[in-house]
Amino acid sequence: MEKLEQLKNELAATIRHYNLKGWSPATSTNYSFKFEDCIYVSRSGIDKAHFHADDFITVNQLGEPIGNSVGLKPSAETLIHCVLYELFPETKVILHSHSVYPLLISNCNQEAISFEGYEVQKGFEGQITHEAIVQIPIFENTQDMDVFSEVLRSSLKSINHFCFIMRKHGTYAWGKNLFEAKRHLETLEYLCQCEYMMNK
Amino acid sequence: MEKLEQLKNELAATIRHYNLKGWSPATSTNYSFKFEDCIYVSRSGIDKAHFHADDFITVNQLGEPIGNSVGLKPSAETLIHCVLYELFPETKVILHSHSVYPLLISNCNQEAISFEGYEVQKGFEGQITHEAIVQIPIFENTQDMDVFSEVLRSSLKSINHFCFIMRKHGTYAWGKNLFEAKRHLETLEYLCQCEYMMNK
Amino acid sequence: MEKLEQLKNELAATIRHYNLKGWSPATSTNYSFKFEDCIYVSRSGIDKAHFHADDFITVNQLGEPIGNSVGLKPSAETLIHCVLYELFPETKVILHSHSVYPLLISNCNQEAISFEGYEVQKGFEGQITHEAIVQIPIFENTQDMDVFSEVLRSSLKSINHFCFIMRKHGTYAWGKNLFEAKRHLETLEYLCQCEYMMNK
Amino acid sequence: MEKLEQLKNELAATIRHYNLKGWSPATSTNYSFKFEDCIYVSRSGIDKAHFHADDFITVNQLGEPIGNSVGLKPSAETLIHCVLYELFPETKVILHSHSVYPLLISNCNQEAISFEGYEVQKGFEGQITHEAIVQIPIFENTQDMDVFSEVLRSSLKSINHFCFIMRKHGTYAWGKNLFEAKRHLETLEYLCQCEYMMNK
Repeated sequence: MEKLEQLKNELAATIRHYNLKGWSPATSTNYSFKFEDCIYVSRSGIDKAHFHADDFITVNQLGEPIGNSVGLKPSAETLIHCVLYELFPETKVILHSHSVYPLLISNCNQEAISFEGYEVQKGFEGQITHEAIVQIPIFENTQDMDVFSEVLRSSLKSINHFCFIMRKHGTYAWGKNLFEAKRHLETLEYLCQCEYMMNK
Repeated sequence: MEKLEQLKNELAATIRHYNLKGWSPATSTNYSFKFEDCIYVSRSGIDKAHFHADDFITVNQLGEPIGNSVGLKPSAETLIHCVLYELFPETKVILHSHSVYPLLISNCNQEAISFEGYEVQKGFEGQITHEAIVQIPIFENTQDMDVFSEVLRSSLKSINHFCFIMRKHGTYAWGKNLFEAKRHLETLEYLCQCEYMMNK
Repeated sequence: MEKLEQLKNELAATIRHYNLKGWSPATSTNYSFKFEDCIYVSRSGIDKAHFHADDFITVNQLGEPIGNSVGLKPSAETLIHCVLYELFPETKVILHSHSVYPLLISNCNQEAISFEGYEVQKGFEGQITHEAIVQIPIFENTQDMDVFSEVLRSSLKSINHFCFIMRKHGTYAWGKNLFEAKRHLETLEYLCQCEYMMNK
Repeated sequence: MEKLEQLKNELAATIRHYNLKGWSPATSTNYSFKFEDCIYVSRSGIDKAHFHADDFITVNQLGEPIGNSVGLKPSAETLIHCVLYELFPETKVILHSHSVYPLLISNCNQEAISFEGYEVQKGFEGQITHEAIVQIPIFENTQDMDVFSEVLRSSLKSINHFCFIMRKHGTYAWGKNLFEAKRHLETLEYLCQCEYMMNK
């Protein structure tokens, strides 16, 4: 259980750090990790400035609280986490952000955003040069998690860099550990900032 | 009295945190909470970087210092707090901010600002979808607190989301506890930032 | 001497805080306070991220190191501090900033900048309403401190709010204690940010 | 060895500080120092938020790990560090940044950027007035470090201020100690921010 506590503490520290950066205003966003086939997801309605290790609750693959967590309320977007663990089986950590830049560049009706020529693109696993074109899908925002789960399933081929954007909502990014999930999220956030600042 | 000390300490920590974000430059802004029918409001002229639990003073419903606080000077805007507690009886905490974004978007003569399609709108109590339109009133700034109290009373119907903007001044937001007041303030600040950055 | 140590420590903490805000990049800026007719000014070439109480040195009214400080090098702009203490005899603390906003709005050839209608204008001592017009002079930058001293003397009538801007250089602000000097500096910085963001 | 440990600790603290400023998103950037003819360079793939003194590894002048570091992977850009130590023999510390401003102003095809009239230009060693013109070269980004080494060698005459920009990648800056390297990097970053904000 020591390993489990370590995972909780490390992700909680990351959550508080991202809150300081302004990525989770007003109790928004949600986070999860997988450990020994269990999904640990952030509770609903926690001020992320004060998020702690015991604010994770255990859910099954349908997003329903199990064990000691029965009766507690997981994040409203828990099903997104469950579907991502299913679609990308190597995933162990999923991060979410409400930072302003992805939101701002997703304000048009485009279905994706392309990045080209940035050194930092190499932050996406498998990318070895800035000379590639990296395309990140932008999905419509919805409150219906069943609908959105189907969007994810049917869009699987367009999700090639371990992340996506929800229009006027935020970003999701994941990886096979916290280190990689952070790298994917920070890469996407940084590229969105650059694109916004370059084109406004 | 332990509970009272806890409230003072938690709000003081929030005040220092918002100061670090640049929301209270130059000793500006003011804050309050209500406990057992007493109003505790921030003292006038305190550098918010150093605000501590003992910088709250007790006032009656007219904003006059009472008890041990007689002779101390409450914030010049104390009457705004008193009127808000009266008009919105469930309110227990009131926050204020001088961050730049609400100020910047209130620079025209508009009487309100509307937000639509943002996920974070759900940060306002009762909002359950990004598909709604949320309208926040913008009032003229004034140094006359009696005048402004009347503006608040006569505008009650337009204040539907526990916050408002004062033109070229800042924002007020409140809630039935610190958690909810923070959520309302951070939601408004975030939406103002998005609107400014999207439209400039 | 306890009081002297306290002044050094409080100003040093302010200097490190402003460095975190990005107001003193690359060892730039300088600061001083007056205590019992002695001027204590920051040493030349100190990284402000690490500024400590013992980085102040004592100078006479011509800016020359005296006492234990003989042989140490005060800031190249020490003479500005000396002249300000002379011209504004109530002054006890002088702050300087290289933040970007005053620099950006001083890029034209204007001789002053006016602020009007901002609540935060009240941060300047004596201002009681946002309805006034506050004018802050902008002086040409120069490396010749004797020349600049004369500029200050001959412009005395235009310096009415305890601060000025040096073109493409930064701001100076002062007060009769650290609290007031901070309030004046932060008021000017905030108003410059608002003007830049509103007009760009 | 005490001196060596101190150097490692001081540079590691600077690395974490720059990470907080957003200058090294997603594990990017790399850093080095030279001590008694040995080059100590940051390991590849470390999250800079957690960089510590033992994350430096020792390489020879070809960038190959030596001694206890054999088998460890230095930064992919280690050869840039080695060539800079060779071309600028007084150099003891080399810093790198992925902050957004240099990237944004390097997005055109220009071969250099000129700064003029800024007080902070004096942060570059040898500059004594804002009235000079300072020109910083912008090189094309490449993944081929041998190619880039040759670019540096053949461009030696254009590198006059201890720093350069790689297009859509970031900045390198160096000095004869950490203090000077920081001053050069922060000067360049600040000037790039000013130029971007002034001209957008």
